[in-house]
Amino acid sequence: MEKITGLIDAPFTPMFPDGDINLEPIPRYAAMLAKNGLKGVFINGSSGEGYMLTPQERKALSEAWVKAVPDGFKVIVHVGSCCLRESVELARHAAAIGAWGIGSMAPPFPKIGRIEELVKYCEAIAAAAPELPFYYYHIPAFNGAFLPMLDLLEAVDGRIPNFAGIKYTFESLYEYNQCRLYKDGKYDMLHGQDETYLASLAQGGAEGGICGTTNYNGREQVAIGEAWKAGDLETAREKQNFSQAVINVICNFRGNIVGGKRIMKLIGLDLGPNRVPFRNMTDEEEAAMKAQLDAIGFFGRCNQF
Amino acid sequence: MEKITGLIDAPFTPMFPDGDINLEPIPRYAAMLAKNGLKGVFINGSSGEGYMLTPQERKALSEAWVKAVPDGFKVIVHVGSCCLRESVELARHAAAIGAWGIGSMAPPFPKIGRIEELVKYCEAIAAAAPELPFYYYHIPAFNGAFLPMLDLLEAVDGRIPNFAGIKYTFESLYEYNQCRLYKDGKYDMLHGQDETYLASLAQGGAEGGICGTTNYNGREQVAIGEAWKAGDLETAREKQNFSQAVINVICNFRGNIVGGKRIMKLIGLDLGPNRVPFRNMTDEEEAAMKAQLDAIGFFGRCNQF
Amino acid sequence: MEKITGLIDAPFTPMFPDGDINLEPIPRYAAMLAKNGLKGVFINGSSGEGYMLTPQERKALSEAWVKAVPDGFKVIVHVGSCCLRESVELARHAAAIGAWGIGSMAPPFPKIGRIEELVKYCEAIAAAAPELPFYYYHIPAFNGAFLPMLDLLEAVDGRIPNFAGIKYTFESLYEYNQCRLYKDGKYDMLHGQDETYLASLAQGGAEGGICGTTNYNGREQVAIGEAWKAGDLETAREKQNFSQAVINVICNFRGNIVGGKRIMKLIGLDLGPNRVPFRNMTDEEEAAMKAQLDAIGFFGRCNQF
Amino acid sequence: MEKITGLIDAPFTPMFPDGDINLEPIPRYAAMLAKNGLKGVFINGSSGEGYMLTPQERKALSEAWVKAVPDGFKVIVHVGSCCLRESVELARHAAAIGAWGIGSMAPPFPKIGRIEELVKYCEAIAAAAPELPFYYYHIPAFNGAFLPMLDLLEAVDGRIPNFAGIKYTFESLYEYNQCRLYKDGKYDMLHGQDETYLASLAQGGAEGGICGTTNYNGREQVAIGEAWKAGDLETAREKQNFSQAVINVICNFRGNIVGGKRIMKLIGLDLGPNRVPFRNMTDEEEAAMKAQLDAIGFFGRCNQF
Repeated sequence: MEKITGLIDAPFTPMFPDGDINLEPIPRYAAMLAKNGLKGVFINGSSGEGYMLTPQERKALSEAWVKAVPDGFKVIVHVGSCCLRESVELARHAAAIGAWGIGSMAPPFPKIGRIEELVKYCEAIAAAAPELPFYYYHIPAFNGAFLPMLDLLEAVDGRIPNFAGIKYTFESLYEYNQCRLYKDGKYDMLHGQDETYLASLAQGGAEGGICGTTNYNGREQVAIGEAWKAGDLETAREKQNFSQAVINVICNFRGNIVGGKRIMKLIGLDLGPNRVPFRNMTDEEEAAMKAQLDAIGFFGRCNQF
Repeated sequence: MEKITGLIDAPFTPMFPDGDINLEPIPRYAAMLAKNGLKGVFINGSSGEGYMLTPQERKALSEAWVKAVPDGFKVIVHVGSCCLRESVELARHAAAIGAWGIGSMAPPFPKIGRIEELVKYCEAIAAAAPELPFYYYHIPAFNGAFLPMLDLLEAVDGRIPNFAGIKYTFESLYEYNQCRLYKDGKYDMLHGQDETYLASLAQGGAEGGICGTTNYNGREQVAIGEAWKAGDLETAREKQNFSQAVINVICNFRGNIVGGKRIMKLIGLDLGPNRVPFRNMTDEEEAAMKAQLDAIGFFGRCNQF
Repeated sequence: MEKITGLIDAPFTPMFPDGDINLEPIPRYAAMLAKNGLKGVFINGSSGEGYMLTPQERKALSEAWVKAVPDGFKVIVHVGSCCLRESVELARHAAAIGAWGIGSMAPPFPKIGRIEELVKYCEAIAAAAPELPFYYYHIPAFNGAFLPMLDLLEAVDGRIPNFAGIKYTFESLYEYNQCRLYKDGKYDMLHGQDETYLASLAQGGAEGGICGTTNYNGREQVAIGEAWKAGDLETAREKQNFSQAVINVICNFRGNIVGGKRIMKLIGLDLGPNRVPFRNMTDEEEAAMKAQLDAIGFFGRCNQF
Repeated sequence: MEKITGLIDAPFTPMFPDGDINLEPIPRYAAMLAKNGLKGVFINGSSGEGYMLTPQERKALSEAWVKAVPDGFKVIVHVGSCCLRESVELARHAAAIGAWGIGSMAPPFPKIGRIEELVKYCEAIAAAAPELPFYYYHIPAFNGAFLPMLDLLEAVDGRIPNFAGIKYTFESLYEYNQCRLYKDGKYDMLHGQDETYLASLAQGGAEGGICGTTNYNGREQVAIGEAWKAGDLETAREKQNFSQAVINVICNFRGNIVGGKRIMKLIGLDLGPNRVPFRNMTDEEEAAMKAQLDAIGFFGRCNQF
């Protein structure tokens, strides 16, 4: 199975001020991501408020992204839902419209406590789009599925033919590496923590990753990997430190989904509000965030729309 | 606002062997609950695998229950969803078809971390069915919303006119009591832990409750309250101990949603399987559970279909 | 084995302003507890900052308490320590000086993860004072030992001859009751949450308890049980509600160990500061706490020194 | 202040079969560590079962280690205890006998919830040995002190003169890096997770570390850093992967304290049992562990006694 090389972006979902989804900015959005060196998008995931969208909205977004992206730019559709039937329908839809792949995290409800439960869930979704690679999105902080990923690989191996790998958004680089080493790299382990990308590259693997901060800091985040490949450790470190500095700022403003989405407005692409229950930033908060980003020289280091 | 007196049952969702929902058993189901002394149902909640159903299925179930119940038997529809827009639509539907009330737990995704987030979520749902009482369903073990409920009452007071109270499914009888005492009982605090019903009655309040085990052990659970009211402490204790003995058994078989749903089959009302990711019981497990129930005399103490 | 009837107090450890222990107040302290209807003390536990004391200090305190208490007033010495050898020595000492019993919580380090580990730990301590009843002090919020207590009873039964029971300081009245019912009440289950005493009495058992707030609210807390026994539910509820109101206040001031210890000063028995790492209350905090206690009529309802 | 370069070992505490401490193996132990390239020892910590030792035993061990080590080999004494007065006494003792430095984790009881509590605790210990560097040992999985370390650095900066840095045993390489960058590296950030050493080196820093598995896998673990410095990434990765393979094995046998200590016997230095509540390995478990170590070629890659 093809392995992903380079970084995939997890886009925000553009919305009108009243909260309706807004497909209009997507072409410009996609173009900018490509310009910044991203290799694809993982849509309708956590950054995209996927669980907060109706199935109809999720389909409309998928269609818009598939239509908007340049040739060879991957669209992976997150189809996870508490309702498996909905996920299956979304997986079929993704296949039908020509998405490159699909993915799903563990359902946040009911909380998954056993590998067998997780395998059953993934199996049913993957089977609904058998021609597409399926990625499991491991982000236990969001759904409580603190399960050993090596056990998952062993359990799906030979059972889910289109299981491609894991988007690994968890702290343990040890476990990440063990999964990467499984059967000499049988599965595609996509690094999923922008702040430790360089560390992961050194350990080996992480040729591919899925990122949340590349929406606004894509050029610099991509450059970490390029510098590393070029053997320029000093530059790679400087850019990773800058990436962490950006993350330090969004951590002060309710993280990537809230703070990060608002940065898009500051660089020229207003994506509108977050959905309830997220608390949208006030104008005062926006100004404070802008000042913090200024202080680290952010606006001089990113491409603006 | 009217307060609920007596116990409300949280029904399972009947399904065909292929997992499709099955509306056919609902009238018999409702009749049995009424016969056992229950005062209503809280449908499409956690026992009902509500999050695992599509909106269409949830509506169909609501309609079937409203149609099936006898006069005065309350139907409260759980409309919670990760997608607020879906919840709003379900709330409107519940009002339109004549449900008695609505309720919602905190969304399991994104995890609620602040009272303000929770209030915004409840507010939007409650406003969609302004003529119906809205109950917040507090079950933090399921969704991670470990928030102080007294703070919630203070926050909604004066802001959500049809906020009726809380279905309190958490361990702290102390917090439960403090909520009950808020403004001399302004809000309806529904006890939500079958195993500590008597303890809660003694402390005061708990005149109303919402129960999961009353699907199969309704007569005995209802009798705890009746014995208590009649001043017969000895009987109340005996029946509460029996209730705990039943709960001991289901805890051995993945809890109420899995084990409890299968008990229904054992007493004559086959409700079919659970949805993925739940692991359905094997025949061996069913036999083992039956033996454990036999050992505590369960089948002689419940009404069978 | 004798079962404890009535309430045992968990005293604070009196200290001089420089943090040295101060044995002088102990006789007056003991006399007041007896006057308020307490039946004994559980010393050097969490309220007593036992883990923060040296073994020499713990022994000195044990001796002072044994000497100070009136006839028939039980002294139970908490001998728990991260270092089992220290606990064994303290258990021997307790036996040698004529303490009534001993107890220990699970060691906070290393965190106990298995019943077998806990049994080994308890076994060694209990064996060091074979003539004294040994109580396991279950307070998992403090040491992470979230283990099923029924499993503990089964494991110690027939193995630790002087295992007397459990001081149960955890939320689950269900588990508490199941332990109480084990072999028709073979073990002494001491209720350990002042705020749910009445609830526990109703359920059955809880004839004995170990309390932290009885240091300053002993008379009223004792009265809950008396009213219950006398069949006066209304009074029992009023006094339990008052007990919760007092607890509401100390929760605003870092809980019983910090806030509660300072209340002692307000009622005439200055017990000095808490040890590091506790943050002692400032004078402003003390004044604020006093005002909150005044507001609930506390000072008119407790005996003052 | 001098920064540590290279790896410090956290030794096990040698014990006789009856559990008494055994000082006899320490000179041979120290010599082997030096031979393997270690730069010092961090004694009486978690690997050393420090909390399970009496103060007398801890002092005896400190003296034995100080006496046994070759010139320039650092002895850092972990002096943490639930009882601050004991820690202060141990810190004074460490200074008096000529230890190189001291360290302490947060007390496991009471659980530290605020930076200010932690600072007070560290401050009192550091002040007891003002001429020695003091290291905070961050290992929140063991004591629940999940506090932001950057906040700690800011809080101690200017307040605790001999605060040298942090032994960082936690998953977040992001936080580790942010601490390392604080005031251009003002504090000595000692890497504390053997399995992610290479990842940390790439990110920058981690010139020094404190390790648990270097007791038996020291030569190879040290070689990771040497290969990295020499620019030989391939070798560094191979050795890091081997280090993880060893850790995979001990994870199957209750981790480093239990499994790792028993490996010492397998390589010729029997250090005796673990103290209660640890469950010592059975002979069968030892044989199974030996087989797993054999399978990864462990015995050919370590120096044996």
